[in-house]
Amino acid sequence: MATTTTRQARRNPDQPLKIGIVGLGKIAIDQHIPAVRANPGLELVAGSSPRGRPEGIEAYPSLGEMLTAHPEIEAISICTPPQVRREIACEAIAAGRHVFLEKPPAATLGEAESIRLLAERHGVSLLASWHSRFAPVVEAARDWIMHRQLRQVTITWKENVRQWHPGQNWIFAPGGMGVFDPGINSLSILTRILGGTIIVSKADLHVPENRDAPIQAELDMVTEEGVPIRAEYDFLQENQQTWSIAVESAKGERLALHMGGTILEVDGKVVRQEKEAEYPGLYAHFRELVVQGRSDADFSPLRIVADAFLVGKRIAAPAYVE
Amino acid sequence: MATTTTRQARRNPDQPLKIGIVGLGKIAIDQHIPAVRANPGLELVAGSSPRGRPEGIEAYPSLGEMLTAHPEIEAISICTPPQVRREIACEAIAAGRHVFLEKPPAATLGEAESIRLLAERHGVSLLASWHSRFAPVVEAARDWIMHRQLRQVTITWKENVRQWHPGQNWIFAPGGMGVFDPGINSLSILTRILGGTIIVSKADLHVPENRDAPIQAELDMVTEEGVPIRAEYDFLQENQQTWSIAVESAKGERLALHMGGTILEVDGKVVRQEKEAEYPGLYAHFRELVVQGRSDADFSPLRIVADAFLVGKRIAAPAYVE
Repeated sequence: MATTTTRQARRNPDQPLKIGIVGLGKIAIDQHIPAVRANPGLELVAGSSPRGRPEGIEAYPSLGEMLTAHPEIEAISICTPPQVRREIACEAIAAGRHVFLEKPPAATLGEAESIRLLAERHGVSLLASWHSRFAPVVEAARDWIMHRQLRQVTITWKENVRQWHPGQNWIFAPGGMGVFDPGINSLSILTRILGGTIIVSKADLHVPENRDAPIQAELDMVTEEGVPIRAEYDFLQENQQTWSIAVESAKGERLALHMGGTILEVDGKVVRQEKEAEYPGLYAHFRELVVQGRSDADFSPLRIVADAFLVGKRIAAPAYVE
Repeated sequence: MATTTTRQARRNPDQPLKIGIVGLGKIAIDQHIPAVRANPGLELVAGSSPRGRPEGIEAYPSLGEMLTAHPEIEAISICTPPQVRREIACEAIAAGRHVFLEKPPAATLGEAESIRLLAERHGVSLLASWHSRFAPVVEAARDWIMHRQLRQVTITWKENVRQWHPGQNWIFAPGGMGVFDPGINSLSILTRILGGTIIVSKADLHVPENRDAPIQAELDMVTEEGVPIRAEYDFLQENQQTWSIAVESAKGERLALHMGGTILEVDGKVVRQEKEAEYPGLYAHFRELVVQGRSDADFSPLRIVADAFLVGKRIAAPAYVE
């Protein structure tokens, strides 16, 4: 097993970073593979998956077989369901590879923390990614908020699970988090734009009688300074899909992020509207972390979800059949 | 509001530390008040409680009224139910007082973290107490484990809620944690004797149909090194009550803690049996933290419970009527 120093010494910073992707499902095909291919600082070497073999990528049944065939791979992107991420991440880190974790970083805070500690011990870079933080108007919203006292924040995150997550039964299994699988994206933006510790005061979790994770949820949260945050999550939204965060300042000024952070509205007027480009930004960030020998492992969005489950009231909801 | 430096400068280290207790329920009367009174380095000044007024202690309806009447109070012990602890802790810290939190430190990890950060900012000492860590044989068990590779750990924590928690309806309310209210004591011992990060792989949570928190639970956990830990919690145990942790080494040696850590058994033989004295040890620890200007705020037992709720499978259990 190579130490990081050896690996870092071996690599030429002008060469593209060689990447292997583990988990070749929907998110890998839709986002990771195109984003890696579009970045000249990265090179997609191969992928691994116990099942699917998408066209156009050399694929192996496991991480181990991929690394045996391609020992030149320097970094692993893990896009599997969260329930199996820790084992793969630990195998990759122990083999001296840098790791990019899809969100959420793991099924539990303990898993996430153990991955972080292992990466630290092996001297490899770890990115616990939150793609929504790379939505185009997030940093502008953060700047706006930094200069104001707030009165309240409202999250409305409503999408159709049948449209966006076809066949993804793991979402409703224990550890899959249900509607918080997309909902955690809003929390990753929230924690970025507000900073500080967000406290969950109350959570209503609507769980289908034939499933283990919520399909709808309402959260009451509060900042350390006492600003109330209300969040409404719905996985059964038909027609108009909504991924919005609205902020009101103490003086009555209003800011809103819409469509997951591609539209910025101030006092009711759209002031910016940009094309979604989260994964290219994420992969540029990952390459930078590796080059600089740093990690980015903030688990606060997952901590908020864990707290919501801890204090949440379970409410029975009708069975969900895809 | 006094700063910590002022307060610390004002106090004479030879004088007893002046303590006010918030929350005058069962645990305050059974444990805190006697432990404070028995320690010559501490002085019990007064208490506060919105309801009960136990005999023999000067009591006020609120923390604010207690501090107005007794500005000389230097430290606050918070023994309320966890759901209201954060607000009281923040009020006490903002008023420049050191804080002793009963377990669990708060209802959520976010609350606990915000209390820790506030104490840091105000330069006061914070003790997030775990009384079971002060059970007499815990440190001996830790030493035994430190010198061995382990094969497995088994927790059996079974008590009768009707006997030990009469009238404590908050235990089954959201945030009350149900059987993890006593169960977290086993996790506070586990994290102390094993060290490292404990990962929850699977949790079965049996929740009475008329309540919000589990009455029985089974957890499968694992250490970072892969040692399996099985925990069984039961709140309906009649007759023999069990608070045991059993450890088996890779060589087949066996260690067990019984009765919450008052009995130490090695290879089937009782090698130590001591009187329970957790709270005197805890209060001695608290006084030392204040004198040395340090804090002790480890939230890992609460993190394990949050992870269990996050990945846990809810299983319907019969209604619980006290």
